[in-house]
Amino acid sequence: MIKNEEQFISFLTSNYDSINKIPKNWLGIGDDAAIIDIDSQSLIFCADAVVEDVHFRKYTEFFDIGWKSIVSNQSDIAAMGGYPLAFTITLGVNESIKEQQLIDLYNGMDSACKEFGGHLVGGDIVKSKNIFISISAIGKNFINKKIMTRDTAKMGDVVAVTGEIGNSITGLDMLENNNIISNKQTKKFLNPVPKIIESKYAVESGIVCAMDISDGLEKDLKRICESSNVKIEIDFEKIKYDKSIEGYFNNDYESKILTSGEEYELILVGPISKINVLKEKIDLSIIGKVTGNKKPEIYFYKNNKQINLTSESFDHFGK
Amino acid sequence: MIKNEEQFISFLTSNYDSINKIPKNWLGIGDDAAIIDIDSQSLIFCADAVVEDVHFRKYTEFFDIGWKSIVSNQSDIAAMGGYPLAFTITLGVNESIKEQQLIDLYNGMDSACKEFGGHLVGGDIVKSKNIFISISAIGKNFINKKIMTRDTAKMGDVVAVTGEIGNSITGLDMLENNNIISNKQTKKFLNPVPKIIESKYAVESGIVCAMDISDGLEKDLKRICESSNVKIEIDFEKIKYDKSIEGYFNNDYESKILTSGEEYELILVGPISKINVLKEKIDLSIIGKVTGNKKPEIYFYKNNKQINLTSESFDHFGK
Repeated sequence: MIKNEEQFISFLTSNYDSINKIPKNWLGIGDDAAIIDIDSQSLIFCADAVVEDVHFRKYTEFFDIGWKSIVSNQSDIAAMGGYPLAFTITLGVNESIKEQQLIDLYNGMDSACKEFGGHLVGGDIVKSKNIFISISAIGKNFINKKIMTRDTAKMGDVVAVTGEIGNSITGLDMLENNNIISNKQTKKFLNPVPKIIESKYAVESGIVCAMDISDGLEKDLKRICESSNVKIEIDFEKIKYDKSIEGYFNNDYESKILTSGEEYELILVGPISKINVLKEKIDLSIIGKVTGNKKPEIYFYKNNKQINLTSESFDHFGK
Repeated sequence: MIKNEEQFISFLTSNYDSINKIPKNWLGIGDDAAIIDIDSQSLIFCADAVVEDVHFRKYTEFFDIGWKSIVSNQSDIAAMGGYPLAFTITLGVNESIKEQQLIDLYNGMDSACKEFGGHLVGGDIVKSKNIFISISAIGKNFINKKIMTRDTAKMGDVVAVTGEIGNSITGLDMLENNNIISNKQTKKFLNPVPKIIESKYAVESGIVCAMDISDGLEKDLKRICESSNVKIEIDFEKIKYDKSIEGYFNNDYESKILTSGEEYELILVGPISKINVLKEKIDLSIIGKVTGNKKPEIYFYKNNKQINLTSESFDHFGK
């Protein structure tokens, strides 16, 4: 039985020729994006969707929905070591949508394109009970053929993360409880920034293992462990986060930080020498290490004591 | 106010920089697919979605939904003069979907890929009230830079169409009324064939004006008229169709044929000399002529008398 995204991907890759028999040098299903080689030019190709009542709700402005739906694709491209070129937008709309909301939605998408790159070149508009925005993107690698993937973490590598973690889940909670209208946390949740420049520096530094945080640091690190078949140990105290989160979530804050999704920060894994060079150029924290290569394992420590997570990262296959 | 797809496209292209300020040699929103130039290689990029209760219903097998959702994208690529390389699949699913249905869906997509080209390389799976399948595709031109578009119809050109027209709407009607389970018409509606080979021959023959029939011959010809700013006159008697349709729809059959959507046949417009060469190689009927270039107009004649259409082509913006 298929219970989660990983099982679904494994089911797909083991059963269908059009999925597993892809051309040499291509990268198919299972990473942040696919890589397709066309005339020895590596292209990045990905898709991401948001759905009403799942990814956004009544309090979400359409500008923000548009912005975020583009950013999540830009972030997938950044995670592969590239920059965005073009997007297609497929809109599912019902009678409840107002013209001004459509204008706002496209304003948000247009702004994210202007800010971080890429053009809106096509799409489709269809009727649907709940509104959805399904986007696909083409990107290009900063250095041709130099891609970053999840399956290249090596024993002895260090694990680093850009920016602060935890603001997204905090912002969402604030918005749901109407506590605060606009601050760093709500801004992070509503208008995240894809790490395009950070990706460029990472590729130039020779980093080959990366992914973006879309479902939470814990869950996304697990994916690196599984893809690379490595053991990773994280020192929670090295994770950079806004100290106000401790008070906001009280006892629960560690779990909240580790399961905060839609952060769009980059996890970068590589030799300490390369990560240290990179740390000079971008906002980066070394938070852990690859300490084994026998089987996929992930451990989080605080004051040398293991943390047991109390909340689950978001899974679209979950209940 | 935005009332239909054309107005929506016009609204988008006039208001957003990321849509209208695209790089030189690119083709953005408004044709069957976009063209993006990467290192002087022309790539085709498009997206198409199907939604439960809009594009498919209870009687539709998931194999057929999968097949058709891939074919509609392959057809868009064929319409631009290319062949498919890669697809991303974004699925919106709810609790009602069964594992066997997912397997069937991917069987259908996989089969269409094996038959007509392209690989499934990525996507997303999200929760949604109604099931939707949103697909995007990358294709490559048969001859680099030789694209076919809607805006290149010229005064004096002839208008030609591949295959038979009208089977799709007839098949749909048969399925809705449970009249017949499997025949040429239902097969055409459920398992249409993208005109990839026909596209190749068309490009090689020097044809530069084409589109696929997704919303009906009348509506799609109108789009060529509008994009190329030409007048087209069609002789209904030259349209190839299965004669059984006359009896099936009685008095209404001309309108049904002219508004039959999801045919995925190609409309090809060009000089008679080139079309005649092409006619030797593929199943093609010359059905009309470009007779003016002052404003967009379309007329249908039968026995030299103008046909007044009694039914409207499908419009996702319509009520």
